[in-house]
Amino acid sequence: MGLKMTREALARFLEEEFPQVAGDFAIDELDENRIRVRLMTQERHLRPGGTVSGPAMFALADVSLYLAILAMIGPEALAVTTNCSMDFMRKPAAGADLIAECRILKLGRVLAVGDVLLYSEGMEAPVARASLTYSIPPAKG
Amino acid sequence: MGLKMTREALARFLEEEFPQVAGDFAIDELDENRIRVRLMTQERHLRPGGTVSGPAMFALADVSLYLAILAMIGPEALAVTTNCSMDFMRKPAAGADLIAECRILKLGRVLAVGDVLLYSEGMEAPVARASLTYSIPPAKG
Amino acid sequence: MGLKMTREALARFLEEEFPQVAGDFAIDELDENRIRVRLMTQERHLRPGGTVSGPAMFALADVSLYLAILAMIGPEALAVTTNCSMDFMRKPAAGADLIAECRILKLGRVLAVGDVLLYSEGMEAPVARASLTYSIPPAKG
Amino acid sequence: MGLKMTREALARFLEEEFPQVAGDFAIDELDENRIRVRLMTQERHLRPGGTVSGPAMFALADVSLYLAILAMIGPEALAVTTNCSMDFMRKPAAGADLIAECRILKLGRVLAVGDVLLYSEGMEAPVARASLTYSIPPAKG
Repeated sequence: MGLKMTREALARFLEEEFPQVAGDFAIDELDENRIRVRLMTQERHLRPGGTVSGPAMFALADVSLYLAILAMIGPEALAVTTNCSMDFMRKPAAGADLIAECRILKLGRVLAVGDVLLYSEGMEAPVARASLTYSIPPAKG
Repeated sequence: MGLKMTREALARFLEEEFPQVAGDFAIDELDENRIRVRLMTQERHLRPGGTVSGPAMFALADVSLYLAILAMIGPEALAVTTNCSMDFMRKPAAGADLIAECRILKLGRVLAVGDVLLYSEGMEAPVARASLTYSIPPAKG
Repeated sequence: MGLKMTREALARFLEEEFPQVAGDFAIDELDENRIRVRLMTQERHLRPGGTVSGPAMFALADVSLYLAILAMIGPEALAVTTNCSMDFMRKPAAGADLIAECRILKLGRVLAVGDVLLYSEGMEAPVARASLTYSIPPAKG
Repeated sequence: MGLKMTREALARFLEEEFPQVAGDFAIDELDENRIRVRLMTQERHLRPGGTVSGPAMFALADVSLYLAILAMIGPEALAVTTNCSMDFMRKPAAGADLIAECRILKLGRVLAVGDVLLYSEGMEAPVARASLTYSIPPAKG
């Protein structure tokens, strides 16, 4: 299929459409059906003890697949999350950025499915995994 | 089994241990194996268009089961989320609080499982459902 | 909305379309957005020790929501499972039938979501829970 | 950690402990934290139209992670599935074997987590994905 958006265009789209959260995320790498997104961990993402919170991990997994899908289908589409399943496996390292390695497993006409491994930067074993489904509404005529 | 914590004790525990988020949540009702928790929706929980964000819904589902479990086993325990599965079914009403109806389905020695229906206050149909597993570490001697 | 199929019509549909498995299941009760389905446990559903196997529990949860959806939209539709999340919480009683209590949480134009509690007949606590999503293809013109 | 069981020992264990289903599965490859398992598709695994049934896909995903875990911890352990989340993405090819590519993501003292991609033999895109959690009881003294 090929990418419809560059890394720069994706980042600009995120800033314009989601200004509240765009500053939290950076797109480290983008390829067909794959993306690596970084949560630049800040105080508000943390739980006592310095570990990244569950909602912040969810947000990173969710935005990663969203961006991976948009890069493939273009920015006009209004994809929405319909399902997410996550396993929290290890405690994230205190203060480290969180890295999402996301791949699209299916990009259908109405549903897209992807999975994500989340890593604390510098740790080898993943801290969490997620799989998500996005519903893709029909293109506006 | 019976409750080991009152609604007031739970609220106090939340404030002391999670001061960053305690102000977002209110415990509307508490019973054995059941709790109703309210997300007092604020600007930072919203997405463009005024709808409550996915991470805010995840946070509400997660904290609800956490509090329901603590109410049953007492505050010393350090339960951690190991799995969450969510279905996002409808768009939350703009500006409305979000209500979580949570029940514990299993409270074992090492694992607790519960499910949650999330409602926009004033809407009859649920906006999301979640099921979560918590791991309960052995009590400190 | 109202039911489009009776319990008898549903059972007949199951026999005609899925003759390999129809004999395993009985529809105990049917109402709008709700169904109770029984797995008439037999040797081939069991694991060593007499407990019902995971795949048999999955099959029961899956067929229950399928029948609940068909009862609402009619038999012509070709709904397919797109997602299932299950928690296995307790060991089923040896030799007992398994009962699924299923409700539809959302019946949309393209996606339907439901959840299921599975009980060993005669036990009060559920042995498993499931949530499933079905994709509903557009009606044939 | 290293493998505690060979492919042959695993296959023998499956035959002895699960004689009802052992004939359905073959272990194509085994490595540390990874396994490839084949469902030798037969009439009883099929739905009308020749596609592999959901319960058969669940069974394959479940047995794959089970065997991958046993290979790492040894046959005496009595691991049980506590959670499974699956996405069904494409229709399996009629009559083809189903191949599970499974990896262990976490092998803890009490919980193991893994994920699985399921392929129809000869198709490039996966037909389903699954993630599963096993609970590992304490070793018998």
